[in-house]
Amino acid sequence: MSDFHVYDTTLRDGAQQEGLSLSVEDKLAIAGHLDALGVGYIEGGWPGANPKDTEFFRRAGDELRLRHATLAAFGATRRAGMKAADDPLVRALRDSRADVVTLVAKSHDRHVELALRTTLEENLAMIRDTVEFLRAGGQRVFVDAEHFFDGYRDNPAYALEVVRVAAEAGVEVVALCDTNGGMLPDQVGDVVSTVLAGTGARVGIHCHNDAGCAVANTLAAVDAGASHVQGTLNGYGERTGNADLVTVVANLQLKRGRDLVPAAALREATRIAHAVSEVTNVPPYSRQPYVGASAFTHKAGLHASAIKVDPNLYQHADPEDVGNDMRLLVSDMAGRASIELKGRELGYDLAGDRALVTRITERVKAMEAQGYTFEAADASFELLLIEEVEGARPNFFHVDSWRVITDSRPDEEALSEATVKLSAGGERAIVTGEGNGPVNALDAALRGAIGQSYPVVEKLDLIDYRVRILDAGHGTDAVIRVLIELSDGEESWQTVGVGHNIIEASWEALVDGVTYGLVRAGVEQSEQSEQSERA
Amino acid sequence: MSDFHVYDTTLRDGAQQEGLSLSVEDKLAIAGHLDALGVGYIEGGWPGANPKDTEFFRRAGDELRLRHATLAAFGATRRAGMKAADDPLVRALRDSRADVVTLVAKSHDRHVELALRTTLEENLAMIRDTVEFLRAGGQRVFVDAEHFFDGYRDNPAYALEVVRVAAEAGVEVVALCDTNGGMLPDQVGDVVSTVLAGTGARVGIHCHNDAGCAVANTLAAVDAGASHVQGTLNGYGERTGNADLVTVVANLQLKRGRDLVPAAALREATRIAHAVSEVTNVPPYSRQPYVGASAFTHKAGLHASAIKVDPNLYQHADPEDVGNDMRLLVSDMAGRASIELKGRELGYDLAGDRALVTRITERVKAMEAQGYTFEAADASFELLLIEEVEGARPNFFHVDSWRVITDSRPDEEALSEATVKLSAGGERAIVTGEGNGPVNALDAALRGAIGQSYPVVEKLDLIDYRVRILDAGHGTDAVIRVLIELSDGEESWQTVGVGHNIIEASWEALVDGVTYGLVRAGVEQSEQSEQSERA
Repeated sequence: MSDFHVYDTTLRDGAQQEGLSLSVEDKLAIAGHLDALGVGYIEGGWPGANPKDTEFFRRAGDELRLRHATLAAFGATRRAGMKAADDPLVRALRDSRADVVTLVAKSHDRHVELALRTTLEENLAMIRDTVEFLRAGGQRVFVDAEHFFDGYRDNPAYALEVVRVAAEAGVEVVALCDTNGGMLPDQVGDVVSTVLAGTGARVGIHCHNDAGCAVANTLAAVDAGASHVQGTLNGYGERTGNADLVTVVANLQLKRGRDLVPAAALREATRIAHAVSEVTNVPPYSRQPYVGASAFTHKAGLHASAIKVDPNLYQHADPEDVGNDMRLLVSDMAGRASIELKGRELGYDLAGDRALVTRITERVKAMEAQGYTFEAADASFELLLIEEVEGARPNFFHVDSWRVITDSRPDEEALSEATVKLSAGGERAIVTGEGNGPVNALDAALRGAIGQSYPVVEKLDLIDYRVRILDAGHGTDAVIRVLIELSDGEESWQTVGVGHNIIEASWEALVDGVTYGLVRAGVEQSEQSEQSERA
Repeated sequence: MSDFHVYDTTLRDGAQQEGLSLSVEDKLAIAGHLDALGVGYIEGGWPGANPKDTEFFRRAGDELRLRHATLAAFGATRRAGMKAADDPLVRALRDSRADVVTLVAKSHDRHVELALRTTLEENLAMIRDTVEFLRAGGQRVFVDAEHFFDGYRDNPAYALEVVRVAAEAGVEVVALCDTNGGMLPDQVGDVVSTVLAGTGARVGIHCHNDAGCAVANTLAAVDAGASHVQGTLNGYGERTGNADLVTVVANLQLKRGRDLVPAAALREATRIAHAVSEVTNVPPYSRQPYVGASAFTHKAGLHASAIKVDPNLYQHADPEDVGNDMRLLVSDMAGRASIELKGRELGYDLAGDRALVTRITERVKAMEAQGYTFEAADASFELLLIEEVEGARPNFFHVDSWRVITDSRPDEEALSEATVKLSAGGERAIVTGEGNGPVNALDAALRGAIGQSYPVVEKLDLIDYRVRILDAGHGTDAVIRVLIELSDGEESWQTVGVGHNIIEASWEALVDGVTYGLVRAGVEQSEQSEQSERA
């Protein structure tokens, strides 16, 4: 690895995101993931400014076993008009015993006057004193030059002076911050070049995505000579977020040939990005570059035959390099080639059987014409595939009938109640379930009715439910498509149901989802004998 | 406006997004929004390649009243080894009667050989013939040079030849496509410069976001001389999506001083982006640049006083220029202006009554925090406005209770049956209605029950119904938002309902929709006396 800094600020600037709130345990978990990704520096928070961050640094020393990363504490320069040693917030930075302290310093004259309410000269003294105090205690010091690009536009001489003063005081790197996020790449590149030429300081870059250019701005700074990049996992951050660190690193490493993190660690990026979104409880963004669920997903059936010959004609990078997968969507443009590829993805080699592929392709097309979609319902497609390959659909239970009732209640939310009559494992069951909606009620009744025969269904959870009206404008003839996502705690899968009645379409998707869950769990089909008895 | 082209491809390339599927009605609605945004060109789809797109172009001529935009049909060059005039797909482009046809042409030699399976020479002939055929029929022709940047890297001479041949055949603009989305801004800028210098063609740019640089790549192309930008609303598109057209336009117009769309139209951008996400049923992304709900949101505290003195110190652009609002997470600065504007739009002058505007703003905020949205539910907002202005909500009937039952039926679709008990016009009614879904059944029962008192409700039709699950991932605690559209045959209006139970949320929207229909019809509220009798 080179001396280039990959500096993560998920735990500090990322945590500024609206609706994101991290406990100390969350922060420790994320720090572990960041280390596995191979970043060089993890900014853990602001010890002294809030008790959670103080505790994080206290526990990090004992509990984190970092292999790659160095922990950095974030803080501000001393207050105006006092000694650094007398400022309790500065002392807390020293007490954090972090190897690196990153100090935020104002570099925009108007902000010094309006937010700090002090003089430009005193601001420079605050930087100098604080850096020297921390350096004297043995800590390495970085500086975040806040609002640098806006400041440089309004008063270039002062902005440069801030960098110079910091460097002279012993700062290792001055990260130029586009705090308001409005810069465009050419501006960032020009300013970084000027700062490097004018100060001799080592320069870093910290970008926000307000103009949709955080990644490109970071690259422009690196092209101009910056050798320290800041960013956050999944681009978390205030407003539109910070530069997405994985995208930045993947671009630099895979497209610019820079050696920033171990290749094996980068191959964990997709897993890590998703694991962190489990910790933050912010749903993953499927269109996220490199690691998004859709990032290497292709729809057009047109190209499927060419994709088979050379997938690299249709992808900008090898998804394996970031731990992602190429995925083909079965869509109404689908042809034989994409069905074959999709089969291979699911572990079925269909290539040898032309008649089978034709049959599946035609069935998919006919169902899609009715309103089904398989691109977001892999599990329904796999059940169809099993049915065509093995001659019968997996069949664990036989439903006689169901009914669901929803009643208004005065001064309370409405209540739904469902009754399902079915036979499973040779036993007939009539079970009623309640829910705060008709689908929850049906789900409860269905799983109640088959739970005795298949206890594994108790682990399943209905985690998402989507409804789409097709042919809107046709009033009561509208076709309704329901997508349901079930999870067994480890993985999740989606199924689809279609019909004129929303409840019936939901029921179809639910039955598919539970059936797929039983297939996945390796349950034996005890219902087949029952079925033949009936026949 | 300059001659610069703002070219939208939401309806064609945007619709390639995983999980996005647009009906003809959806496409017509989105085209109306795009026109309101002031784009120059709307690519409507591929007539001839699928019946939905053929129908879109057929209906667009009659139903769309475009003020700014020109409609473009997308299609491919003729097949190898035949005349353009004999290719039914090319003929369909002419028959679409679109003013502009945008032809996709291969410009990467490997793709010509592997995907088209023809010679490099024949590919050039296919471009020449198809362009000349369409030009002879009086249509303007643009070309999308597919995989241009990868093609240029592998075989620059051939890629340039494609541009030259297209320009010589009479193409107005050749859009260079980063189809795989992996380019970085410096590469894009260099190639665009070279193409402009080497061919004399007018150059456009079409970018995807696979490396997180779609917006920056588009800007780099414009800086190098491209004068036609393609993109999609909300950055919809395959994989990681296309360049977000609003971000591109806002950057060029607000930061580069280019005059691309009317300033008043750009001030509608936030509303339009959200309205379109209601049509596509893709949840809006709160961190989206310029138009995201969080795009101008600040965690107040530290900087609050400085923000009050000069908000521009903390924002990269004026949120009003894109119709967004600065929002402080702990205080109340947002909304008032837009509530006033909205009131004026609906015919209520609220400007004189500060307390009233504050009350409405706070109520809207509280309801939005629960999951309501009024962007696509004008009728619900107007009912709320009437309630606050006049002291009481329009009230034509009093509901005692409702119930809906859905039953499976062997070998038939499920049937729903609803019973509503209410009093209207002094009469108590208990009416049961059937439907092929629970909402249709409730609609039938509700209108049956009030129809005797208010015969005008027989004219109303339930024409659209949309469901969105908020807080997906929270399982049974999920909040459900229902949008309903009713029509009286002349105009239509939308209402919103929110709750944990999908049926109850639908009922709320339905009651609002019917109530609004009665207000619209000028019906007198005979229920008020009945209400007071009960009290």
